[in-house]
Amino acid sequence: MNEIRVGLIGFGTVGSGLAQTLHEQKDRLIRRTGAAVTLTRVADINIDKLPEHLNSAVLSRDAADIFNDPDIDIVVELIGGIEPAKTFLLEAIRHKKHVITANKALLSIHGREIFEAAVANGVEVGFEASVGGGIPVIKSLKEGLVANRIMSIMGIMNGTANYILTQMTDHGTPFAEVLKEAQELGFAEADPTYDIEGIDTAHKLAILMTIAYGKHVQLSDINTEGISRIEPIDIEFAKEFGCRIKLLAISQNHGEHVEARVHPTMVPCSHMLANINGAYNAIHFNGDTVGNVLLYGPGAGKMPTGSAVVADVVDIGRNILNQSINRVPALSYLPEHIGTPSITPMSELTCPYYFRISAADQPGVLSAISGIFARHDISIKSVIQKSRHADEPVNIVIHSHEASEAAVELALTEINALEVCAVPAVKIRILTSDD
Amino acid sequence: MNEIRVGLIGFGTVGSGLAQTLHEQKDRLIRRTGAAVTLTRVADINIDKLPEHLNSAVLSRDAADIFNDPDIDIVVELIGGIEPAKTFLLEAIRHKKHVITANKALLSIHGREIFEAAVANGVEVGFEASVGGGIPVIKSLKEGLVANRIMSIMGIMNGTANYILTQMTDHGTPFAEVLKEAQELGFAEADPTYDIEGIDTAHKLAILMTIAYGKHVQLSDINTEGISRIEPIDIEFAKEFGCRIKLLAISQNHGEHVEARVHPTMVPCSHMLANINGAYNAIHFNGDTVGNVLLYGPGAGKMPTGSAVVADVVDIGRNILNQSINRVPALSYLPEHIGTPSITPMSELTCPYYFRISAADQPGVLSAISGIFARHDISIKSVIQKSRHADEPVNIVIHSHEASEAAVELALTEINALEVCAVPAVKIRILTSDD
Repeated sequence: MNEIRVGLIGFGTVGSGLAQTLHEQKDRLIRRTGAAVTLTRVADINIDKLPEHLNSAVLSRDAADIFNDPDIDIVVELIGGIEPAKTFLLEAIRHKKHVITANKALLSIHGREIFEAAVANGVEVGFEASVGGGIPVIKSLKEGLVANRIMSIMGIMNGTANYILTQMTDHGTPFAEVLKEAQELGFAEADPTYDIEGIDTAHKLAILMTIAYGKHVQLSDINTEGISRIEPIDIEFAKEFGCRIKLLAISQNHGEHVEARVHPTMVPCSHMLANINGAYNAIHFNGDTVGNVLLYGPGAGKMPTGSAVVADVVDIGRNILNQSINRVPALSYLPEHIGTPSITPMSELTCPYYFRISAADQPGVLSAISGIFARHDISIKSVIQKSRHADEPVNIVIHSHEASEAAVELALTEINALEVCAVPAVKIRILTSDD
Repeated sequence: MNEIRVGLIGFGTVGSGLAQTLHEQKDRLIRRTGAAVTLTRVADINIDKLPEHLNSAVLSRDAADIFNDPDIDIVVELIGGIEPAKTFLLEAIRHKKHVITANKALLSIHGREIFEAAVANGVEVGFEASVGGGIPVIKSLKEGLVANRIMSIMGIMNGTANYILTQMTDHGTPFAEVLKEAQELGFAEADPTYDIEGIDTAHKLAILMTIAYGKHVQLSDINTEGISRIEPIDIEFAKEFGCRIKLLAISQNHGEHVEARVHPTMVPCSHMLANINGAYNAIHFNGDTVGNVLLYGPGAGKMPTGSAVVADVVDIGRNILNQSINRVPALSYLPEHIGTPSITPMSELTCPYYFRISAADQPGVLSAISGIFARHDISIKSVIQKSRHADEPVNIVIHSHEASEAAVELALTEINALEVCAVPAVKIRILTSDD
């Protein structure tokens, strides 16, 4: 029987999920591909022994043992982080191994170098597991929607942040408390910065934009804001406006320029993305031919990620068996057609806004604030003042009509400088139904 | 430049959508594949002239002109119906042409013959557009979820039926009135039988089950009920139970046996499928590795279907260019591993039920009915009696605990035979959260 031989670097949670999936699905994969997909070598510096079902695989402490094994076809990197993952991937590519990674941080920062090295060495790069966990989002975008100019990408791409916002929405619990619970339950990491500050979501948006538009989009292109300043009161107001607050990745395609932003967003309850709850992910595309498509599923976890990595292994394995390497270009467009993106400056964005301004409860404050908005041409749709306790600052909540981000920034700078405002205003962009 | 030459049989709405997509996406497809995808011949007996952008294509009245053209690589059949579509597809296959079809009726009835002919002739069959319109559901199931045993398939696969149920839910309009509106708006056909009686949904479920399980599932394997007996009062009661009524295709995989059913279903509002509105489709899979995945998008229409057909053209085109024909087996499993399904008899199904029994408003009726349920071991969770007007029958609405379909059928036969029951009872199965 034909055999596809896989070497794995990193036997942590995701790596052991890959091994388990290959083990459990072995017969199914044979019936689907006619080939045995075998994990022949594992490199990890933290384990002494492989599980029983991997007794035919060799465990090594040195990743080089994997590149140097002439029998290995595909090297899977599942250690995460920038180094030594980057060096390992580039070394594997130099050794003419096809590579698979779930490493969105690495791809969104050094993707260009990695993909160019792969082209130069005639090998494939699989990265289905880097975005949306087990959801076949990369394949759908590269192949299923091949006949589309992608007009927008919008998504909930971080399960931890979505879990926190869902808990805050359902139970009114403050952010810090939910985060602590999530950490205790293992849904959030000890250092949750990447998840809650939108950085992980930005990694994924950069990857999706790259293949959607055929442009090398990098992490530094994405304008990123997190959810750590969202309070239960913001969620309550969102409900009053018929919305839910979600941490969204958004890219609108304006032709010459494309938007690239990650931030908390008020999403109308009628929108599919408002109804994605808990740790699930969902990615919404608008294609000029197909219209709106949404893909939903588990965005992380040992087995969902295993499902996606094995899909890549099989995809590349089929190309090895059929001698059809790079049958589909790694970045969806042929290398010679990949360009450099031009990102719309955030200052050019226009949308309706929600502002929550915490100010001393004094006469004239609302007049001062609304005067500032008026001077910057920001038209107010509604204002609600709510004080929680006497002697505490009041929360002035303003829902604006469509306004320009540049004007909003200027207005908020002035408002934050007011003596009555002790803490900076909270600003949440509102998704409109045409988005 | 490489060229992929396509012949099209049937230049109706979907056929012209394919032509338009190929025209509009020509440059994009070149940048993605390195090849020009060209529609070189069109056969249609109802048109005299092709649109301007197709001036290099030859129009013919005879489909044989397409099979006999040695320069054509792929034949796309978009005429629908069983004959002559079946003959045309088999003829094309015999002429060693790869074929693509959106014809779910044909595939769900004669799929086995067509797929076996394709294997015998070494050609591919593309059918992405046959299920879920523009949603890349076939590719996701065959490739993205390759490392999964599919444990269940549930979906809203008919936009017309979902549009009607959504309108009934949002506006309380009776079925017949919404259907008439839908026909006037072009959302429903003059003969809506296939859409409203669940037959079109059953076609699609048969196709998905075939590739999910690697068994030749046919239309006749699917237990099918439509939505024409649903009344606004059922929708009101569904709301009271925290549910919405949806026409669902459902297949649970029990190993030896698999369920295969299409029927109106009360779906808890917390389930993603309850929130799919209007003419959209959504297909939900549970895979043993990945967990729950849902794919959402436009289930029909000229351009969404064009998007799916072109995805198949490109997929097969890439295999032609790379000489990697049948790189992925058409039915997801290799032909020698495709078996015959064993379908769970409906009588073995167990679930909670909703019953609406219209009975004369007489003393003792409820006692008679509840007595019948009790004798058949059907435990009642709640009963509501509502009369609309004096002298009219009352509606007795019963929400049962989990009960067996066999018992339910026996009980309903007895209830329908009661003199006080002028019309047969309405029965709607209720989806539970573990489904």
